Amino acid sequence: MKYGIIGYSGRMGQAIEELFSEAGHQLVYQKDEAGEKELEKPEVIIDFSLKEAFAETVKVIEQKQVALVIGTTGLDQDDFAELKRLAEEVPVIQSFNFSIGINILSELINKVNQYVDQDWDIEISETHHRFKKDKPSGTAIMLGDLIDRDELEMHSKRLGSEFGEHEVDFASTGEVLTLKHRAYSREAFTRGVLISAEAALDLDAGFYTFKDILN
Amino acid sequence: MKYGIIGYSGRMGQAIEELFSEAGHQLVYQKDEAGEKELEKPEVIIDFSLKEAFAETVKVIEQKQVALVIGTTGLDQDDFAELKRLAEEVPVIQSFNFSIGINILSELINKVNQYVDQDWDIEISETHHRFKKDKPSGTAIMLGDLIDRDELEMHSKRLGSEFGEHEVDFASTGEVLTLKHRAYSREAFTRGVLISAEAALDLDAGFYTFKDILN
Amino acid sequence: MKYGIIGYSGRMGQAIEELFSEAGHQLVYQKDEAGEKELEKPEVIIDFSLKEAFAETVKVIEQKQVALVIGTTGLDQDDFAELKRLAEEVPVIQSFNFSIGINILSELINKVNQYVDQDWDIEISETHHRFKKDKPSGTAIMLGDLIDRDELEMHSKRLGSEFGEHEVDFASTGEVLTLKHRAYSREAFTRGVLISAEAALDLDAGFYTFKDILN
Amino acid sequence: MKYGIIGYSGRMGQAIEELFSEAGHQLVYQKDEAGEKELEKPEVIIDFSLKEAFAETVKVIEQKQVALVIGTTGLDQDDFAELKRLAEEVPVIQSFNFSIGINILSELINKVNQYVDQDWDIEISETHHRFKKDKPSGTAIMLGDLIDRDELEMHSKRLGSEFGEHEVDFASTGEVLTLKHRAYSREAFTRGVLISAEAALDLDAGFYTFKDILN
Repeated sequence: MKYGIIGYSGRMGQAIEELFSEAGHQLVYQKDEAGEKELEKPEVIIDFSLKEAFAETVKVIEQKQVALVIGTTGLDQDDFAELKRLAEEVPVIQSFNFSIGINILSELINKVNQYVDQDWDIEISETHHRFKKDKPSGTAIMLGDLIDRDELEMHSKRLGSEFGEHEVDFASTGEVLTLKHRAYSREAFTRGVLISAEAALDLDAGFYTFKDILN
Repeated sequence: MKYGIIGYSGRMGQAIEELFSEAGHQLVYQKDEAGEKELEKPEVIIDFSLKEAFAETVKVIEQKQVALVIGTTGLDQDDFAELKRLAEEVPVIQSFNFSIGINILSELINKVNQYVDQDWDIEISETHHRFKKDKPSGTAIMLGDLIDRDELEMHSKRLGSEFGEHEVDFASTGEVLTLKHRAYSREAFTRGVLISAEAALDLDAGFYTFKDILN
Repeated sequence: MKYGIIGYSGRMGQAIEELFSEAGHQLVYQKDEAGEKELEKPEVIIDFSLKEAFAETVKVIEQKQVALVIGTTGLDQDDFAELKRLAEEVPVIQSFNFSIGINILSELINKVNQYVDQDWDIEISETHHRFKKDKPSGTAIMLGDLIDRDELEMHSKRLGSEFGEHEVDFASTGEVLTLKHRAYSREAFTRGVLISAEAALDLDAGFYTFKDILN
Repeated sequence: MKYGIIGYSGRMGQAIEELFSEAGHQLVYQKDEAGEKELEKPEVIIDFSLKEAFAETVKVIEQKQVALVIGTTGLDQDDFAELKRLAEEVPVIQSFNFSIGINILSELINKVNQYVDQDWDIEISETHHRFKKDKPSGTAIMLGDLIDRDELEMHSKRLGSEFGEHEVDFASTGEVLTLKHRAYSREAFTRGVLISAEAALDLDAGFYTFKDILN
């Protein structure tokens, strides 16, 4: 597979290149604040850059007409509208969290929803390294969206080098059930990006989540 | 609801009366070693007594022809045969564990089983108060039976007044998923008994587990 | 010991009476929303009522000139000024948390302070039952005051019947150290109240914390 | 600071160079199985090599008369005698565990020991990656040695890529206190080495442990 990375010099960009390279794929396009470098036309582009660079990403995909796998955090409603417009032309796979475990966690939350009524208390917590600025994390918001509550408190800790921990608590007056996920390293995410990029080659234009890819 | 309790003076019997009374139900029948007291005919009878009293319970239900919710421990195959015979005449709801959370946890483990292969590490831990002698707990063993592993390590802590905590960890080299349940008090179990007793009023004769009631 | 309770019908009031009665002490004065009842003059008064009733408590102590053990939450600077004025006349023992474990936790935080500099991240979390309205808990605030930070984030969960859990995390980019305390029941607190009330009989007028009593 | 590394090509050697380089220090001397390379005379030498290379290390320090920070495992009594002889000429800082957090944790356990009597329950748990064979970990054993109990249960989990987590629980019938440490990465140890190397420049000749440096 010939692929490109937007946000190449970022931490996720570097980790993606490492895993993709181990898997035998070929980096032919890269872009970051320092500039753009293209050896050949990529078959798929991975974007793990910043919301600020999103408009640029859209332009690149429109111009090249290649599949996009995007994990950039902080995208808002307008950005999603843009992604869905792009998805009319090319396959777009978007997720705030490409880990298999977070995907399982989502399924478990859906399962718990069948049992707990409005009388249960629910809290969501997440912990990430000190350099993560957005609070709560995109993943915490995604998990919260699975739960049918008007108000849902979220707790964001910023500690050391934590790669990413998410926890959901469900409590009645008799008991508490806790579902917790922790990523040991970027490998929890890059493996899901690899699965997505490989899948993208066989997909028709359209908007997909990582969950669609896994199921 | 008019209800009765067999094993009225036991800890579970007392805790059941407390919760049922809060919920506005009316205790009209009670039975234990000290004797029997009937104010009115109950619509449902709860039995949390001892295996030794089981034959008596069967007689009472046969005579009154009312629904039975039974959580008595140590029932054997013959006892279950009796319960199934009774279930031809009245609704019978039986479980060794009426905690909603533990039953949800079992469902979640079954769900996780669909995603994790033999390459994931799995560990089960439980913590109970210092007076609990058996290790691991019966619930830990039951949870372990849901997991398809030849060897499965179990860790038993005995600490202070812990009412009962169970945890299952699933880990790949990239991430770890933890499912944890903690009972705050006996109410973890009495709430499930209440749900069962309320459900029993609308059920046809038949044998049901607590899981059937929850689903 | 002849003692009184302000906030008698509250949960802490009831738990205090239970433990004090087991210890052979005699309740001779009680006060709550329903009114006041005095059999004899108490030697010490325990107040676990509400901030709203604080002015009344001050009047009662002034009038009776007896020792006060007070665990009411939400007291502000003005209330403390009042307590210190009272302490010129009688012994006043105040704490937001009468548990021995929380006292040890405070000592541990002081110890950690000797090692971690401003480059460590620190977070404080607490979990209490759904009926606890104040956020963060008085104990969390007290723990935070031990830490030399201008800004210190606090996370408050409200879950089921949790009696009280407090956690402090210290993280560098290499590691994270977590100190956590959980009360199993009101016994964690009432035992400290008992120790304090018994100690109060031998104290001179003055303002004391529970830490002073323990050390 | 101009520094040298013995055991340069090992995992710790590499991790030390990375952190020291970030901190602006200059590697001027390196030594391992492949040979020796000296650009300038170092002010301090770090040794994280093997017991087999220890005699060589002693020679190097004697010859250069510079401070030594040594974390090599498996040193025996004779080796310590050698280190103490060296310490008459230069500063020598030795430890089997340069994690700041684990050293703080040890201090905290000593503090808790002052408060909890034999009626408290104590449990030690540790979790490490699936490839760690020894159970319990050396660190868990060291922590257990700080606690005055004839029997002390230890629980060892082996999960995914966990770098190293240690937990000690202390419980009375009223409450439970938990002290937990988790290393995010090798940086948990290299930071302690950095602190030691920087401190060594200002030390007189003598034998020091990492705990001496921290205090």
